[in-house]
Amino acid sequence: MVMLAERLRKIYDETGVDALYIESDYLRRYLTGFYSTDGTVILDGKSCRFVADLRYFEAAERALKGSGVDVVQGGPREALALADGYKTLGVPFGELTLAAAKRLEAAGHLLADCTPAFRKAMIVKSPEEIGYIQRACDIAEAALAALLPELKEGMEEREVAALLEYEMRKLGASGTSFDTIVAFGANGSVPHHETGADKLKFGDPVLIDFGCKYEGYCSDCTRTFLFGDDRKHEKFKEIYAHVLNAHMLVLENLRAGMTGSEGDAIAREYLRKYDLAKYFTHSLGHGIGLLIHEHPTLAPRSEETLSDGMVFSDEPGVYLAGELGIRIEDSVRMENGRAVSFMKGNKNLIVL
Amino acid sequence: MVMLAERLRKIYDETGVDALYIESDYLRRYLTGFYSTDGTVILDGKSCRFVADLRYFEAAERALKGSGVDVVQGGPREALALADGYKTLGVPFGELTLAAAKRLEAAGHLLADCTPAFRKAMIVKSPEEIGYIQRACDIAEAALAALLPELKEGMEEREVAALLEYEMRKLGASGTSFDTIVAFGANGSVPHHETGADKLKFGDPVLIDFGCKYEGYCSDCTRTFLFGDDRKHEKFKEIYAHVLNAHMLVLENLRAGMTGSEGDAIAREYLRKYDLAKYFTHSLGHGIGLLIHEHPTLAPRSEETLSDGMVFSDEPGVYLAGELGIRIEDSVRMENGRAVSFMKGNKNLIVL
Repeated sequence: MVMLAERLRKIYDETGVDALYIESDYLRRYLTGFYSTDGTVILDGKSCRFVADLRYFEAAERALKGSGVDVVQGGPREALALADGYKTLGVPFGELTLAAAKRLEAAGHLLADCTPAFRKAMIVKSPEEIGYIQRACDIAEAALAALLPELKEGMEEREVAALLEYEMRKLGASGTSFDTIVAFGANGSVPHHETGADKLKFGDPVLIDFGCKYEGYCSDCTRTFLFGDDRKHEKFKEIYAHVLNAHMLVLENLRAGMTGSEGDAIAREYLRKYDLAKYFTHSLGHGIGLLIHEHPTLAPRSEETLSDGMVFSDEPGVYLAGELGIRIEDSVRMENGRAVSFMKGNKNLIVL
Repeated sequence: MVMLAERLRKIYDETGVDALYIESDYLRRYLTGFYSTDGTVILDGKSCRFVADLRYFEAAERALKGSGVDVVQGGPREALALADGYKTLGVPFGELTLAAAKRLEAAGHLLADCTPAFRKAMIVKSPEEIGYIQRACDIAEAALAALLPELKEGMEEREVAALLEYEMRKLGASGTSFDTIVAFGANGSVPHHETGADKLKFGDPVLIDFGCKYEGYCSDCTRTFLFGDDRKHEKFKEIYAHVLNAHMLVLENLRAGMTGSEGDAIAREYLRKYDLAKYFTHSLGHGIGLLIHEHPTLAPRSEETLSDGMVFSDEPGVYLAGELGIRIEDSVRMENGRAVSFMKGNKNLIVL
């Protein structure tokens, strides 16, 4: 048996259960580093076993050799049998289905929620995880740069989304990290606009909220720009400058030790000075990792303390219903006590 | 209050609970026809209420006017309050998380599994649903036709997947119905091959398993073809002909009233005659709808009886490990007692 990684040992110790029993895709990936759409990880204080069926067994054995994770061939039945000796199983209450919970209880297990232990571990990213997120951000930025010269009058929002997604895939992304939002004109004023068949017109503001996955890790980015300047954009440009200032102030002034609420306030208080805070109708940011929404949360009521290794979005926005919407978003990490963006591009207003 | 649709009434009656309480995205969509990433549907014998937050409230009100579904503005708290008068709630045990179940139980509710009622209703598609699946299949076929002339030596598997996905999006798909599988050469012998960086070479067999979504409904299709004929494909061509025969025999001989097991046997018994059944290592088919894997199942042990309105895949395959893999798959429906393919293209072996 290979030695159990320190990282796994810590998560196990944190839970106080006899064993963790993990069927959730992304938690399994987090524990083992191996991606599969099926399987069970059983982690106790001494061992970590990954029960994989025939589709994944060989690949998992190859990938996990020497990692401290033992690969066992089998399906749900074999996994349940391996859990037999443990009374209390740690499972993620927010992921496990009621049907699965009932099967485990019927087999005589007590269930305890292991969510807090995972949250505590996952909120701080390892250098390897930071590297994957950097790559996901690099791909997103490069794809956007490839997209911009291709935009033409008459293109539909969904066509633009399709082209951007194609560029990300071509650059090595495994897929999008969420449904790409492309909003032309006043559609940008709906923060969760559903990308549709509206056609691009000269002078349209364009808002694109997008991201991709690399090795399972997400990027998240929003850019707002003008498709030609029809000289009717004084107000747009003024507000754009304020949103960008709010975004940059967060990058400049955020410090380890602040709470998510204090981080959110950097942007919100700036916008308040210009009477724009009431149009900033969502939180400043959310954690980013294997999921597109993780911890920490940067929001008016968030008490989470920010520290090195955390990764989250910095995305202030101003929305005037039916008129305009501007959001500028980078994925950022805490490093040496400060916020550092994963994005390298210039964020001054682009006029195509 | 508008009248409750017969369809909803039937699902409710089937469950025998006081009300259904549905938070699952696709079940919510099934009940209301409206897509959102959040919300709760509460269905009793007299009313169907959709609790939508600010992001979705207006759009839902517009879309559901006159449908028999009342839209109520609110979040999880408001939904829970609306459930207050009901003792037993029907929830899908295989979808609801343990955390959500515990919240409902803490509010004094008893929970009953409504999965069988949904399965019974959803296994038979309405003409409207059939129409959406037809469109998803048309898009998939048109995208493949657009892809083939673009294939070039040296392209990576993932580049081909990206291009195919782009074509589907451009033709109106909202996204893929599952991760596109592109397998060059012997990679095709792994039924769930992970699309990677292998490069296309002259003479390679190419297996593409793909599908898209239209109005939430999935298509599923697999094609295997040759990227040029290097005159080393005698065995490949022979087996291709057998897989195609197995696939076509199912289309010709499947009848309403047969079980999923009898359907599966049409292909399996044919392949057995040529000593190929042992290389047909998966089931013949799975139901297709809002999910890519639904009921009925066409597999050696499936006792489900096939009937008009059911939609599923017909996908025999032969896999010689490390050597070759051939799968031919259409999405099909039962109509007038027989199987009818949604796909219109010719399935004779293509040599590019």
